[in-house]
Order: sequence, then C-alpha cells, then structure tokens
Amino acid sequence: MELKNDLILRAAKGESVERYPVWLMRQAGRILPEYRAVRNSLSGFKELVETPELAAEVTIQPVDLLDVDAAIIFSDILVVPEAMGLTYEMVEKKGPWFPKTISSAEELKFAEVDFDIEDRLGYVTEAIRITNKELSGRVPLIGFAGAPWTIFCYMTEGQGSKTFSVARKILYTDPALAHELLDRITNVTIAYLKAQIKAGAHMLQIFDSWAGILGKEQYSEFGIRYIEKIANAITEVPLTIFSKGAFYSIADLAKLNCNTIGLDWQMDPVSFRNEIGESRTIQGNLDPAVLYGSHESVEDLTNKMLDTFKSRRHIVNLGHGVYPDIDPEKVRTFIKTVKSYEINC
Amino acid sequence: MELKNDLILRAAKGESVERYPVWLMRQAGRILPEYRAVRNSLSGFKELVETPELAAEVTIQPVDLLDVDAAIIFSDILVVPEAMGLTYEMVEKKGPWFPKTISSAEELKFAEVDFDIEDRLGYVTEAIRITNKELSGRVPLIGFAGAPWTIFCYMTEGQGSKTFSVARKILYTDPALAHELLDRITNVTIAYLKAQIKAGAHMLQIFDSWAGILGKEQYSEFGIRYIEKIANAITEVPLTIFSKGAFYSIADLAKLNCNTIGLDWQMDPVSFRNEIGESRTIQGNLDPAVLYGSHESVEDLTNKMLDTFKSRRHIVNLGHGVYPDIDPEKVRTFIKTVKSYEINC
Repeated sequence: MELKNDLILRAAKGESVERYPVWLMRQAGRILPEYRAVRNSLSGFKELVETPELAAEVTIQPVDLLDVDAAIIFSDILVVPEAMGLTYEMVEKKGPWFPKTISSAEELKFAEVDFDIEDRLGYVTEAIRITNKELSGRVPLIGFAGAPWTIFCYMTEGQGSKTFSVARKILYTDPALAHELLDRITNVTIAYLKAQIKAGAHMLQIFDSWAGILGKEQYSEFGIRYIEKIANAITEVPLTIFSKGAFYSIADLAKLNCNTIGLDWQMDPVSFRNEIGESRTIQGNLDPAVLYGSHESVEDLTNKMLDTFKSRRHIVNLGHGVYPDIDPEKVRTFIKTVKSYEINC
Repeated sequence: MELKNDLILRAAKGESVERYPVWLMRQAGRILPEYRAVRNSLSGFKELVETPELAAEVTIQPVDLLDVDAAIIFSDILVVPEAMGLTYEMVEKKGPWFPKTISSAEELKFAEVDFDIEDRLGYVTEAIRITNKELSGRVPLIGFAGAPWTIFCYMTEGQGSKTFSVARKILYTDPALAHELLDRITNVTIAYLKAQIKAGAHMLQIFDSWAGILGKEQYSEFGIRYIEKIANAITEVPLTIFSKGAFYSIADLAKLNCNTIGLDWQMDPVSFRNEIGESRTIQGNLDPAVLYGSHESVEDLTNKMLDTFKSRRHIVNLGHGVYPDIDPEKVRTFIKTVKSYEINC
C-alpha cells in the first residue's frame, strides 16, 4: 500500500522534507479519553496489548485525533521477556512486576530463545497488519522493541527500580551470565523486529529506557554491543535508537547502522548535533512538562526549540513519553506548531 | 579542637595532599550491622534523626569501623521542609511521604521562613556538637542540606517520583510560585547551614538529588540560581555541590563560589576535569555497584579510576550513596585501596 504521508521516512533517511515530521512517544495511551474508554472496558492493560483489533484501534486514535505524522503500534516492551518465558503482571499505579526473575545460569531456562515468533507474539504482528489495513497508507506505522539492556533489567530485577542494583550487580558478579542473557534477548529481539517488518512496520525504534543507569564503559559493553547487533540485522527499514540518559554514548550510538538518534530533554540538540554530525537524523526532544503550560507557552517553547535546529534531519517529538495527565488540546497545539513551522535551513 | 586528619579539607581547598582522601555518601547507614542495631531499637528512622546522642553515635560508626577520612552528620535533607511546616513520614520500603504539599500561593503558609533554626532544627546542631566532642578531632565532620530544587520537589510532589511531573508542572504553570518557594527554601537553608557551621561542621555539601530531571535552561533558572545564593553566603568552610545527573551544568556549577564538585558515576572524571579545570576539586565517582564485585575486582576498578586522575584535586567517593546491601568488607577494600594508592601527578 502506497503511503500518502511518508514525511517521517524521508526525514529518517535524510531525504528532502518540506517540513519537520512530528509524533509523540506514548501518543496512543492515557492522554486520550477515547483510549481510556477502550481500556476501561477490559480486564487490564495486558488484555489490550494482546487483542489485535483493540491494539490497532488505539494505535490509530492519535492519527485521527491528534493528526500526527506516524502511528506507533500499541504494545509493550515486556512482551519479549514474556515470550521468552517470564510472564509479567501490570500492577495498577506500580508498574510491571515479574513473579520470577533470572539470577543464575540455572535459571536461563526461563529465557528461551528457540521459539516461533508468530506463535508467541503473533498478537503484535496481527495488530500491525490490522492497523496498516485500517490506516490505508495515511501515515507510516512504527514498530518497536526494548533494547536488550533494558529488557535485561526487568528480567533480573523483576520490576522498576531507582537504581536497578540487582541488574547491575550481575554485571560485576557474573558478567558471563549477563552476556549470555543479553545475547538471547538480542536474538529474540532481532527475530521479533524482523516479524514486525514482515507484518508491515515502516520503521522501527529501539527503546533503551534504562541506558542512563550505566556508566560509559559498561554501557558500551552491556548495552551498545547488543544494539549494534540489532542495528546490523535491520536493513529493511529505517531504525531509531533512543537511549535515555546515555549522554556520554550518543556519539557512539550515532556510528551504528541506524538512521535516527533519539534525544531526551536533558540533551541540548545543538551540542548533540555537533557530536553526531549530519549523517543521522535527530529525534526529540521537547520537555514533556512543557505541555502543562498554556497554549501560548507550548507554541512559544516549541518554536524556540525548532529555531535551534540548524538542519532538516529532525523528527520532532518530546524528550520522553507524553505524561498521562496532559490535556490533548495541548498536544494538538504542539503538533500544529510543528506543522506550521517553516524550516529556514 | 585541632584536627588530627585534615586531608579532606586540604584537598577541597586545593592545598598539598600526600594521598587522596576518601569517604562514602551514606556511609553512616544500613550497610553497617552496628547501625542496624541502633536503628532497630527505635520506633523509626525519624527517631534516630531527632535524637542527637544516637545520630552522633551512628555518625561516628564509619570512622571507627571503616576508617574513612571524614564523618558526615547522620540526618536527612527532609528536616528542612519539616522545619518549614511540612511534616513527613518515612514509609518503610517506599521512602518519604508528605501528607500535605504546596500547590498554590495560598499554601505558602506551610513554607515558613521566619523561625529560629535552633528552635526547630536544634537536634541537628546538637548532634554536630556531640559528634565533634566524641570524635576529638580524629577527622573533619561534614554537614549538609538538600539543594532548594530537590527540596522543592518533595514539598510539591510529596514523595519520590520517576518524573517529578507535579513539581515540574509548576515551573511552567506558575513560575512565580516556584521562585517564591525556592527563595524561601534557600533562605532557610542558608540559616540552617550557618547553624551547622556554628555548631562545628568543618565542611558542607549540597545534595541536588533531582537536578538531572531538569533540562539545562530550567536547571539554570530554578536550580543553579539558588545554589549560587547559598554558595555566596557560605564563606566560612569549604563547600561541595553534588548535582546528580546534571551533566550539562557541571561547568556552570564549577563557576560558583564553591570548592568541590561531586560527579555521579555516569560522568567521566577525565572529560569533566577538562570542563571544570584545576580551580575546583572533583569528588567521586566510582559506580556504587562496583562494591558488589569480588575484593580483587573492587581493588582493580578503584585503582583503574584513580589512574585516570591527572590532578591532586580529588576527594574519592562513590558516584552516589553506597547501596544498603553492600558487604562492609568491600567498603573496607575500597577505602584501603584508595589509602594505599600513590599519587603520581
């Protein structure tokens, strides 16, 4: 199916664009009353993730309601550890929780790698197929996965953490176990992303949410090494890498076989453009809290950010997922502001 | 009382040192069985903070048991908001919780500024006096306070948070309220730190635990501006500023009227030395998770870090507080390694 709006793909590849494309991380989610209506009709978050028709419905909502330049498949990075053998629960107001975690070589049996993706994650690829059918080429569809390090954090720690000290302890006490588990996650992730491409994903993003908890050397050894394997395996569609907090590794990430580097709102686009150069697109990075301000302030601060861009190689987004209590009207103001901005470089 | 070991003070001031001084953030705390014995005999954490004799006892424990080059008064940054009018509870396994928070100008009445420090925080200054008496000049005693931005986070958010979006929302919706509250916190903090000096603190540290949640511009306006006021007011003893996560502002912080800049373990000492120059001492910054490794590995990674130092202006520490489940023997290995390291620059 031919795309009517392929702006984001051109921006990712560094091709000519008439304006900056824009979308939001977590755009399909709690900010929209239409999402909450679907979600509240179900037993829980996982039912939504695992029901392709409904996942497709909430994936398309922000395209209809917010007029973004891309859809991102509604899912969760934790479907991968679950497919590998560690089920998770989504605890209201607390976040994900894994009753079983991995802390020894013995427990690697809970990190299976030889299974059929369609068998265990077919609900995601099916959601991609339905979404594309219903989108009829209006905008591209982004697929995604967690980076191996972030998935490793959950498989070993079992839940969110301020320090992820259980996960990080393993890097010092049993690096061989860490590498074995990271390798398995990487192999499954590559197969999973390939399945997403086959199902129709037009571009892919790797989320390394807990990158910033590691120092530069450890992130190189336990993080980037595995992202590199993924990047080298994904040649069919543009790839975005978003390593939150890893300011010290952005230049190294930009050397990987990828198209776009995501920046969080702590990273100044001007200095990181200097680090990255012009061979990669930058995605981001308005402070998500800007959308708490007035419409005038949202417009003003969005324009102020865009004014700092000295290149056409940008995909506009927030520096992290949109906060659930943001007024969708403010999101619309953000999107309209980006869309009406005239690039002067 | 004359100090028998003033190494850390000389290092802070950039004077001649024969070896690097070393201490650990959270050295007085759960890592020591001797601390847990005291703590478990009490009703809660706050009772320990508010009982000067016991606070002094646990302050001295790491000097006796770990042989550190400085003591840091056992207390909590949240005693300041409590003194201002917002009481907090320390909820087991959850952290601090404020039943009442500030979200409007009307509620600024819960942020009192005109009160006598000795009246409401006398238990801290008394603990400092007792500690110094019992230390008999063995090592210097560090006093501390939270940075205004971090205290603001708790006074508005009421608890820990991954995003501190309640606190950050105010910066966009009511910056005047934010500045008024920050100003009040700053004034109380200055008076509090002055009282600590008067009681006998030999040096002071400002902890900005949530600095890294702001982007550079906002940290400059709502964070550094108030740290600067404190730094200008503290002229009697050396001052350390530790703004966790604010990699983008380290050079600006180093321009303030302070002696030492703390680095977290994500910040490479070599590149930040280049940013800071030789006019300030650097404190830090071994990954706290290193202490999970074997004794050989602790020794090896500590020496590796020390080898990167190309200056004598260093105070050795971890890049954050020591994790509560670390074996004290590993801490001893860390300290011994630093103490036996021969500076070759």
